Amino acid sequence: MRRLAIALIHHPVVNRQGEIFTTTLTNLDLHDIARSARSYGLEAFYIVHPFEGQRALAERICRHWIDGPGGVRIPSRREALSVVRFVPDVAAAREAFGDPELWTTAAQPRGEVTSYGAARARLREPGRPVLVCFGTGWGLAPSFLDEADLRLSPIDAGTGFNHLSVRAACAITLDRLLGADR
Amino acid sequence: MRRLAIALIHHPVVNRQGEIFTTTLTNLDLHDIARSARSYGLEAFYIVHPFEGQRALAERICRHWIDGPGGVRIPSRREALSVVRFVPDVAAAREAFGDPELWTTAAQPRGEVTSYGAARARLREPGRPVLVCFGTGWGLAPSFLDEADLRLSPIDAGTGFNHLSVRAACAITLDRLLGADR
Repeated sequence: MRRLAIALIHHPVVNRQGEIFTTTLTNLDLHDIARSARSYGLEAFYIVHPFEGQRALAERICRHWIDGPGGVRIPSRREALSVVRFVPDVAAAREAFGDPELWTTAAQPRGEVTSYGAARARLREPGRPVLVCFGTGWGLAPSFLDEADLRLSPIDAGTGFNHLSVRAACAITLDRLLGADR
Repeated sequence: MRRLAIALIHHPVVNRQGEIFTTTLTNLDLHDIARSARSYGLEAFYIVHPFEGQRALAERICRHWIDGPGGVRIPSRREALSVVRFVPDVAAAREAFGDPELWTTAAQPRGEVTSYGAARARLREPGRPVLVCFGTGWGLAPSFLDEADLRLSPIDAGTGFNHLSVRAACAITLDRLLGADR
């Protein structure tokens, strides 16, 4: 099984008008995605944000739960948030995680996409580590998707309507890639 | 395929000490779970709260997105939040949904539990509608779990660590029960 980590990207993502922009940190992204990441046994969850102040805020929130009163009250939250890492861009996450393949997620298909079944099998073949990237806002920038080593299929919920939150999409993606066979 | 709905229970649930209590509404539960519910084609997402003031608050939030400026800005959010219903207790949800079987979810097994594979198959057999219940706080009250028609297995993420948020657990549950085969 290859090593797997995830990244939550705040730039480059698109806004409602399809323009490249930078989103602000969402506290519950940090909690929910760290809890999912730790539950599925990931080594690291990278918060990718270009602004030092936003990274400092995220780190301060984590410290409350790791070293502060939050972790005393809820020890499993401490364990979950311990997988969070802070980086200014995806290049820094790639360097920290040992030259991984970059896999992307999106609500709409773009270019050639890979099914979850095929991606799950690929994870179990020998190879480089894998960093799965999730976009905030209205999703990862097209140029970012174009440079991916693998683009995961949009999650098919069977209705043609796909308005999952990034927290829900991340949970489903980890379950599809790593969950026990059903 | 049987009719399926979900309920988010704010009472009776347990607190950290295992005592029966009532949780307050979380705004992002409403958004995330409605978005997942609508994406997976559910007819209804019941917010179960015994306090009229909390139900009124939830309804006011929904109205902002359904009739108000929120829905003009993000039409898919309007569509998602349109599946939300407000009821004081589970009995009212059962009555509204046509005498469904009650299925429960929990982070720890209690009594006899049913695998997701078996539950997925059961959904595809003829039978009564199904209402899948999710607990807030530290989970559904033991007495509530004991009275269920079916208890879903805890989500097996393969690590023995299960600290998923209710938003993540709900997304994974819907994907396991209703998602396209992978």
